[in-house]
Amino acid sequence: MGDLERLPVGIVGASGYGGVQLVRLLMDHPSVEVVYLGGDSSAGKQFSDLYPHLGHCVNLTIEPIDLDLIASRCQVVFLSLPNGLAYQMAPTLLSKGCKVIDLSADYRFWNPETYKAWYGGERNDPETAALAVYGLPELYRDRIKEAQLIGCPGCYVTTSLLGLAPLLKQGLIVPDTAIIDGKSGASGAGRTAKTNLLLAEADNSISPYGVTRHRHTPEIEQICSDLAGHEVTVQFTPHLVPMVRGLLATIYATLRDPGLVREDLVTIYTAFYRSSPFVRILPSGTYPQTKWACGTNLCFISIEVDPRTGRVIVMSATDNLIKGQAGQAIQCLNLMMGWQETLGLPVVSFYP
Amino acid sequence: MGDLERLPVGIVGASGYGGVQLVRLLMDHPSVEVVYLGGDSSAGKQFSDLYPHLGHCVNLTIEPIDLDLIASRCQVVFLSLPNGLAYQMAPTLLSKGCKVIDLSADYRFWNPETYKAWYGGERNDPETAALAVYGLPELYRDRIKEAQLIGCPGCYVTTSLLGLAPLLKQGLIVPDTAIIDGKSGASGAGRTAKTNLLLAEADNSISPYGVTRHRHTPEIEQICSDLAGHEVTVQFTPHLVPMVRGLLATIYATLRDPGLVREDLVTIYTAFYRSSPFVRILPSGTYPQTKWACGTNLCFISIEVDPRTGRVIVMSATDNLIKGQAGQAIQCLNLMMGWQETLGLPVVSFYP
Amino acid sequence: MGDLERLPVGIVGASGYGGVQLVRLLMDHPSVEVVYLGGDSSAGKQFSDLYPHLGHCVNLTIEPIDLDLIASRCQVVFLSLPNGLAYQMAPTLLSKGCKVIDLSADYRFWNPETYKAWYGGERNDPETAALAVYGLPELYRDRIKEAQLIGCPGCYVTTSLLGLAPLLKQGLIVPDTAIIDGKSGASGAGRTAKTNLLLAEADNSISPYGVTRHRHTPEIEQICSDLAGHEVTVQFTPHLVPMVRGLLATIYATLRDPGLVREDLVTIYTAFYRSSPFVRILPSGTYPQTKWACGTNLCFISIEVDPRTGRVIVMSATDNLIKGQAGQAIQCLNLMMGWQETLGLPVVSFYP
Amino acid sequence: MGDLERLPVGIVGASGYGGVQLVRLLMDHPSVEVVYLGGDSSAGKQFSDLYPHLGHCVNLTIEPIDLDLIASRCQVVFLSLPNGLAYQMAPTLLSKGCKVIDLSADYRFWNPETYKAWYGGERNDPETAALAVYGLPELYRDRIKEAQLIGCPGCYVTTSLLGLAPLLKQGLIVPDTAIIDGKSGASGAGRTAKTNLLLAEADNSISPYGVTRHRHTPEIEQICSDLAGHEVTVQFTPHLVPMVRGLLATIYATLRDPGLVREDLVTIYTAFYRSSPFVRILPSGTYPQTKWACGTNLCFISIEVDPRTGRVIVMSATDNLIKGQAGQAIQCLNLMMGWQETLGLPVVSFYP
Repeated sequence: MGDLERLPVGIVGASGYGGVQLVRLLMDHPSVEVVYLGGDSSAGKQFSDLYPHLGHCVNLTIEPIDLDLIASRCQVVFLSLPNGLAYQMAPTLLSKGCKVIDLSADYRFWNPETYKAWYGGERNDPETAALAVYGLPELYRDRIKEAQLIGCPGCYVTTSLLGLAPLLKQGLIVPDTAIIDGKSGASGAGRTAKTNLLLAEADNSISPYGVTRHRHTPEIEQICSDLAGHEVTVQFTPHLVPMVRGLLATIYATLRDPGLVREDLVTIYTAFYRSSPFVRILPSGTYPQTKWACGTNLCFISIEVDPRTGRVIVMSATDNLIKGQAGQAIQCLNLMMGWQETLGLPVVSFYP
Repeated sequence: MGDLERLPVGIVGASGYGGVQLVRLLMDHPSVEVVYLGGDSSAGKQFSDLYPHLGHCVNLTIEPIDLDLIASRCQVVFLSLPNGLAYQMAPTLLSKGCKVIDLSADYRFWNPETYKAWYGGERNDPETAALAVYGLPELYRDRIKEAQLIGCPGCYVTTSLLGLAPLLKQGLIVPDTAIIDGKSGASGAGRTAKTNLLLAEADNSISPYGVTRHRHTPEIEQICSDLAGHEVTVQFTPHLVPMVRGLLATIYATLRDPGLVREDLVTIYTAFYRSSPFVRILPSGTYPQTKWACGTNLCFISIEVDPRTGRVIVMSATDNLIKGQAGQAIQCLNLMMGWQETLGLPVVSFYP
Repeated sequence: MGDLERLPVGIVGASGYGGVQLVRLLMDHPSVEVVYLGGDSSAGKQFSDLYPHLGHCVNLTIEPIDLDLIASRCQVVFLSLPNGLAYQMAPTLLSKGCKVIDLSADYRFWNPETYKAWYGGERNDPETAALAVYGLPELYRDRIKEAQLIGCPGCYVTTSLLGLAPLLKQGLIVPDTAIIDGKSGASGAGRTAKTNLLLAEADNSISPYGVTRHRHTPEIEQICSDLAGHEVTVQFTPHLVPMVRGLLATIYATLRDPGLVREDLVTIYTAFYRSSPFVRILPSGTYPQTKWACGTNLCFISIEVDPRTGRVIVMSATDNLIKGQAGQAIQCLNLMMGWQETLGLPVVSFYP
Repeated sequence: MGDLERLPVGIVGASGYGGVQLVRLLMDHPSVEVVYLGGDSSAGKQFSDLYPHLGHCVNLTIEPIDLDLIASRCQVVFLSLPNGLAYQMAPTLLSKGCKVIDLSADYRFWNPETYKAWYGGERNDPETAALAVYGLPELYRDRIKEAQLIGCPGCYVTTSLLGLAPLLKQGLIVPDTAIIDGKSGASGAGRTAKTNLLLAEADNSISPYGVTRHRHTPEIEQICSDLAGHEVTVQFTPHLVPMVRGLLATIYATLRDPGLVREDLVTIYTAFYRSSPFVRILPSGTYPQTKWACGTNLCFISIEVDPRTGRVIVMSATDNLIKGQAGQAIQCLNLMMGWQETLGLPVVSFYP
């Protein structure tokens, strides 16, 4: 490190899975240098104390979270913290000239009331929140290029929206018929020790959770409504799957035009994502395995039409920690800096 | 063995998962004696050559499939074979006085055309097929008690139907809105070696298959239509989950009466299954883990209502190899013999 | 429940895996009635709040740990607690006439100094400790029959000792050449939430731990020395395997007589365990899968001799939560009560 | 593709895991262009028909295996075939001026009799075999630089030898006391469908295989003997672990000098591997998780000394498909071409 031409960036919240993925990917990024890792409980530790397998390639100490110090050192700051912390830091960092990319829910909502209703907390950063751009490049690429503050969506929402967007944008479905059955690997719940996430509990079992009331629901609806041009209500059911990483959204919706066939939709999706290098529309009849996306920033999408029921079934698969988290944040960085969108982002899975 | 008061039964197709589960459960059944194990490729082998872990408690040789010999020795015959073989054996076995419990698809369909359309094959057993009773005790208990020939449903269909039955029987949903998102462990695909079922391929990944065209669809619709009293079309999407056993059906449907709340449905389901000892309606807000059912003949059901969307979401979980296969066949046997329905069937999971 | 002829037993520490396995197995035990479940943090909860899948068959509240109350209600008490708590309760319970079966390390050591050296803590129960019998029935059956207090060994130690015992007892190996490479499923570490046991961390990875200094080492050596009649030092290395349950010990030792062949040892082992219904010596060339033992109280043992190296390799497999924990405690109970040793203990695996 | 400055290479046997890893890694290699993929059963198929997740980045057809065509197009050929096929192709390819890197066992043995004894088959390529260099760069780097034909060792052997080499080379252990307890993920057995490798069979279970007679034993002994300067006999026991990839070797040996302590050996290992960029000696007391190596060409090594037993315990972990297969072959290529040894080889795990 020490290359003067590289962009100096910092990561606040480096000890979780979001942090370690950011570190891992940014290390291989040709135009970035990680100059700051910040943590609270982990402050003072070597990063390699937390992740010994990176000891040979990451020689950084986790420092206390000091906004002045961060701003003095970094041009871009990634915030990878629990919900409710980013909005206490972003205003200051922005005022000191940093660009901020937040991976939490804090800056994903356009209506502060919605955030408060689902996440609680007293916020006094309305002006800052108003500046935030929703960090899903495939849908908001141009705004991201101009943004100073990004609120990146997470794995369930990203994977679901990429699967639904062309249908809503082009008015192909009856909007309120959209049902998203989501399946996530255990890393999506983070690295905090919880009994229900122990291997002994979660392995060899699948279970739903947050049924009808998961906090990602209003976020999905916000973007679906924006795409459709009117209020859209969706059904979202997440499931914990006994695997480390990977996210699959199986999406059901009723077609407005029952005459549409699968090939029509494959054509529509392919066109819709023509300029999106990370979205791969699979050939008709090929369905995604989440494993195909693992280790990459890709989203694999497959579409089926059932003439018997008049429904379209969209299957969308990502790596929850990359396109669903750290990779997407870096994709936003690339756009914000005017770099090639794909810079430093993997597209080949470590299959099997 | 050799207890004269026990019912002599035979298992044709003992080498697969259905067979080994039947052997395992029938060994502990107080009123049954397994006097015949039949196989084709495995004929001549000791059963313990295939399953060394049962060597200490099963001392049986797998014999060739000889219908005369089977009939001379067994009063009840379980057929656990690939689709298309049972209907070549059942007529003869019945004519020789055996009761037959088939675990394949051969005797599940009331309309021979439907079977032919989805499974192919030339059949000339219309009279026999007409005698077959659908082996789902919770829905067809009385007919099963009188039956000579049973066609047992498999894991996806059983788990889905137990989740849907009260809604359809009582006209609570708009029938064609029913969507079943099914998730199955790998043992549901049987013990035949296939590349996509290798641990190296299937572990750490989830994927859909047979989307819009899975052969269980017409079977689910047959029973749903019978319950509703008119033709019902359902959407069914199976998924391969990286676990050995367990089956979860997440079912979505639109309520006819949007005023119904969760507690109403919990009450309705509890009443509907009052006489069904293997169906457990979970308390409101508790969702099933498939692991809870593993090793048992139970089906755990949880119900949610989403007032925002007017939908009911039913989550139904079973052990695909027990309530979804061998246990259900034994439950049918108990009814056919006038025994207590729960005889010899486990109800305590081997959790974790 | 309420059957007057059944033995009233209590379980202190009902919320962990040891507790839930004890509950599960004792429910099916024909001569026992569980009349007390005790817990600390979980006191006041319904047992089914912790384990909803048992709600239909266990209707017990977890009560505070009150030794007078326990003694007034129970004739036998199982202690399934973290190390260091049993020795604070056992003396009182014994003085009040209860028999005590402890699943922790507290009563496994014959030399108090050894316990103190490896587990720490100040103990003032020397008289009580002196009464304790080591709860491994295959080696100490007669003493267990007479015991009032049992210290049951855990999964690693039980599985290792059953594999080593015939070799040491009959002086077939050079004792200090014994190396035990142990592999355990994650449930062996209990149900307490720890980061390294999360599915996201532990799945798809295997790792050693406690190398050269694991606390089971002195316990294994205590019994090996007793069997050999002189001090024995062993090498023990545990590994965390990405599976829920199961324990495999791969044991290496140098034969005193290089002329011995595999069949000799199979004969010796078979004779040694002739009266031990739960130990199964596998046919030559058949190696155990831990899965074969899962759900049972069995220990599968396979023996190989390598004429090239003069070593014997013993492979010993159990279910860490049954023969390695709860099942063994119940096996001890059966012996203490003069019942058939196998009463209420499963011998058929829930394979696959 | 078509970059004239890149080295044109071919892969024979592209459809297996070795092949797909070679394709994946070589695609990202800055100095190589894959110009030929050869297969037998898969000839004529698009590579992306076998691996749809690579459809966006690999546009190659699998061609029949035609040695003239291969030699006309490729300067270096990777042979990733079942044992016994490479020696039927290598002589011709070499005679036509290709360099050959074989991933099978065909060219690993210096004594043709040893190969014949363990692998069978009639071979008439003694001159060619005599040219082969053993493809373990950490031990034979200089010879590999000059080689035309490489026989690359596989996962078990590579991981074991890297763990043992410093001890043998420097005479620190009593050679015949070496015991290797190996643990491998299921991908190590390849992609051919076998019942025992099905997820339903292999998941949630660990089991040994090939005990005392595995074919890797003579290969490990060949190199150990070369390092020690005299005949060495080792004990090797492989185990199938329920994970997709990863290999751990737990190695036990008796120290010649019981006075050596852990830090001495850490120093010795660090020095021994000073020029080996892919070997990482872990800090004292840190033990490897196989997951740390997954996705990389690294080998993590940890060393313990047990003063009680006088043994050294070495733990060595790799990704069986990279350092244990495809990555190692590319490391050899880099050396053969005089490139930087690390070119195009990943060193950051995709943890978790």
